[in-house]
Amino acid sequence: MKSQTQIGKQSIRFVKPVFIMSSACVVGPKEGEGPLKDTFDEIVEDATFGKDTWEEGESEMMKQTVSLAIKKAKLKEEDIRYLFAGDLLGQLIATTFGLMDFNIPLFGLYGACSTIGEALSLGAMTVQAGYADYVVAAASSHFASAEKQFRFPLEYGNQRPMSSTWTVTGSGAFVLSEKEGYAMITGITTGKVVDYGVKDSSNMGACMAPAAADVICQHFQDFQVAPDDYDKIVTGDLGIVGKEILATLMSEHGYDISAVHMDCGIEIFDNPNQDTHAGGSGCGCSSVTLAGALMNDLKQGKLKKILFVPTGALLSTVSYNEGQSIPGIAHAVVIESKL
Amino acid sequence: MKSQTQIGKQSIRFVKPVFIMSSACVVGPKEGEGPLKDTFDEIVEDATFGKDTWEEGESEMMKQTVSLAIKKAKLKEEDIRYLFAGDLLGQLIATTFGLMDFNIPLFGLYGACSTIGEALSLGAMTVQAGYADYVVAAASSHFASAEKQFRFPLEYGNQRPMSSTWTVTGSGAFVLSEKEGYAMITGITTGKVVDYGVKDSSNMGACMAPAAADVICQHFQDFQVAPDDYDKIVTGDLGIVGKEILATLMSEHGYDISAVHMDCGIEIFDNPNQDTHAGGSGCGCSSVTLAGALMNDLKQGKLKKILFVPTGALLSTVSYNEGQSIPGIAHAVVIESKL
Repeated sequence: MKSQTQIGKQSIRFVKPVFIMSSACVVGPKEGEGPLKDTFDEIVEDATFGKDTWEEGESEMMKQTVSLAIKKAKLKEEDIRYLFAGDLLGQLIATTFGLMDFNIPLFGLYGACSTIGEALSLGAMTVQAGYADYVVAAASSHFASAEKQFRFPLEYGNQRPMSSTWTVTGSGAFVLSEKEGYAMITGITTGKVVDYGVKDSSNMGACMAPAAADVICQHFQDFQVAPDDYDKIVTGDLGIVGKEILATLMSEHGYDISAVHMDCGIEIFDNPNQDTHAGGSGCGCSSVTLAGALMNDLKQGKLKKILFVPTGALLSTVSYNEGQSIPGIAHAVVIESKL
Repeated sequence: MKSQTQIGKQSIRFVKPVFIMSSACVVGPKEGEGPLKDTFDEIVEDATFGKDTWEEGESEMMKQTVSLAIKKAKLKEEDIRYLFAGDLLGQLIATTFGLMDFNIPLFGLYGACSTIGEALSLGAMTVQAGYADYVVAAASSHFASAEKQFRFPLEYGNQRPMSSTWTVTGSGAFVLSEKEGYAMITGITTGKVVDYGVKDSSNMGACMAPAAADVICQHFQDFQVAPDDYDKIVTGDLGIVGKEILATLMSEHGYDISAVHMDCGIEIFDNPNQDTHAGGSGCGCSSVTLAGALMNDLKQGKLKKILFVPTGALLSTVSYNEGQSIPGIAHAVVIESKL
């Protein structure tokens, strides 16, 4: 089994595909006014989700999303053997308090905005190996809790540079199974921490693009494939600035991905009308775009095969204020339509 | 394969055992003066590890530990396919900056002080399934970076209540392989988030004991075993207060673990002489005790079979200050001597 499974330096080919049985996405009001509004399961008008704090609101959003994914798979909570989940908040409090009531064993994950890629990877590895019949992979981010943590309290009304991105208020969840589903995870390439020494926390795209380039190039080598083997290569939240850097880095490696590249951060908001500058970001950005728009297209066979590459910027206010650079990480997941 | 592998509600039995090829532990000066001093690979007198900040010092400590574990396994960095690692700091900055230079794919994990249990679990699952020949599981904590983040800057010289524990400055790392090693991981029971509503961040033992009890009871049921099937049942950092609560909770479930229970937090410091109050804590506490003292005993056959149950308290200063409770999580790993 091993020689079939371990591919190249950093990849796994799933000998039997792992099925995505269902996906769910819940977003806040701003995302609900954007170009992808018709693809979301739920648009919640009250960004506090009825709670007293932004953090509790984010937890409630993740809880609703996971519940909905399980319901859409026609399963019950007790059918799910493991949760693989994470968020952006220190010590994963959105995940802890959001998923506590499910009474399902939890693997807490942190890969910054690449977390849903890490969750789908470990979830698929778990299902393929027979450790679980059903698992849930989930991630969330919330504009207000993220701004409060990483930048400034909303009340300050600070100015944002044009290279900055807008953290998506959204959560995406996926039920994986070896039995049935309308899309399949057929391979993964797991990313390394990549540091180009960028220190500007208002320019996350520049921090993450090198990690995206690194894992995409490695994926091409490991699987012996090329950009045109995919209908789309989907990065998480590089935004307008990061997208250009990725194109440059890929071309330096001899790859032109321009015909198939899509960035969730660019798609999710209508710029400049929604005033989000370089685009959307956060774990929720790639999670809800995959769970909604992309899954719809995979379900209908409009997309046959995509490479999903959510990207994360690895910083905290402590590391940033101490003058450290902002390294990136990205995890690639091959998703194919069953049609 | 599946029916042999999935055991009960929350457990996996590894049909072929996963071997621990090597372990390494590096600690700070206070730990080096404690009762376990002769079991550590390295005791570093300068708690900054030669760096400018506590956080960079923690990263350097983790880097040295992982390097040493790989060296002790007589492997090279490029032999390691995945790193499974985490720490206590927001956005896992100790891990990111500590493991960046290894150029090895990273799964970032957060389970608070249970993180090494989560890392060993996912690492063993990965090796058993043939996804990797060699992986490293690692975790760290640092007294100064943790106090700064969770409580008060050291310069305040605040008073600590007697129920509080002392975050261990230490990092433990393990190389796992399916081929050879002196100890074996033969099963795991993955924990759920358990909340008893405790809100006292100076009494982590009380926050975590319910999670430990929950996963240990579930382990007994899933594997159909009893306390005396183990030479030791080793919790991570319950301390003196948490140990008593665990004994009470276990007895309510009809189990008496007193003859075999050991808590790393109680063993690692000499109380009251080292003035650490209820004991040691942090990801490093259970990691270095397992990597040093317990692995030595497993290697020599003094211990034949242990249940290792590191425990984590799931809070951040944000969740705490917003009045949330402090839930716990614990992950159980069965480790057997090869002798």
